[in-house]
Amino acid sequence: MNDFRPLRAEDLVIGERTDIGTHTPSLGEIVDFASQWDPQVFHVDIEAATAGFFGGIIGSGIHSLAIYQRLAVQNLFAQWDVIAGRSIDSIQLTAPLRPDVPVHGLVTVQNIVFSHDDRALVTTLGELRPDDGKPILTIVADSYVRRIDRR
Amino acid sequence: MNDFRPLRAEDLVIGERTDIGTHTPSLGEIVDFASQWDPQVFHVDIEAATAGFFGGIIGSGIHSLAIYQRLAVQNLFAQWDVIAGRSIDSIQLTAPLRPDVPVHGLVTVQNIVFSHDDRALVTTLGELRPDDGKPILTIVADSYVRRIDRR
Repeated sequence: MNDFRPLRAEDLVIGERTDIGTHTPSLGEIVDFASQWDPQVFHVDIEAATAGFFGGIIGSGIHSLAIYQRLAVQNLFAQWDVIAGRSIDSIQLTAPLRPDVPVHGLVTVQNIVFSHDDRALVTTLGELRPDDGKPILTIVADSYVRRIDRR
Repeated sequence: MNDFRPLRAEDLVIGERTDIGTHTPSLGEIVDFASQWDPQVFHVDIEAATAGFFGGIIGSGIHSLAIYQRLAVQNLFAQWDVIAGRSIDSIQLTAPLRPDVPVHGLVTVQNIVFSHDDRALVTTLGELRPDDGKPILTIVADSYVRRIDRR
């Protein structure tokens, strides 16, 4: 037993920004992820990638998204009473995910719409960026979060 | 040696629709994926998920996206001379990914913009749906594809 009560939609604050920490993907993690889910040559073939457009292996955009989601769940969404994601309105892949380069996550609550009696639609802006560079990922997503039960 | 020549932007046809096949995620695959990348209770905790909003485990939206990407790469994008994805303009998660329910993928070429001398921006509409149901995922994405080199 514990006293953990997840945050409801009414507890969230528009404009609030949360640091969700850092993750550093190894070359092995990048190649393993892409081998399973996105086996394009520039994600999985070191020799071809080195000779190619980016001069080396870059991570799958879905891997960037998965890294963001893990950081966000572990360090923020686990404290919210989330029902499920509903849509992702925009993902910009503005720079490549590179092996051994730490990427740092931030989440901003952009909007809260009290759409149903039992839940609200919460819009978040997420970012993943290296310490000294431009974002590799920005994502705007809508999720349903439970409202406080007044019955 | 082989004679494989990947398709360039000029080879693609706006409106063309390709069947990219089917994937059936097991409960184990769904829980494994989410345990690593999206450990929310409704994705990883069978007991809590069964008592919850969806009456059972549902897959991560990022897992749906990864399944789509694998089918699309294996059965379509591997034949294209893709440089990289640039953006995802919209992802709708319109129904949950469920264990042991086959999902079937389709890709439609929506637009081709000859943006640079060496590459074009290709917009694709992707869908993932069970055989008898509404889509679980629709995704509109822009990727750079190489143009025919005229030098």
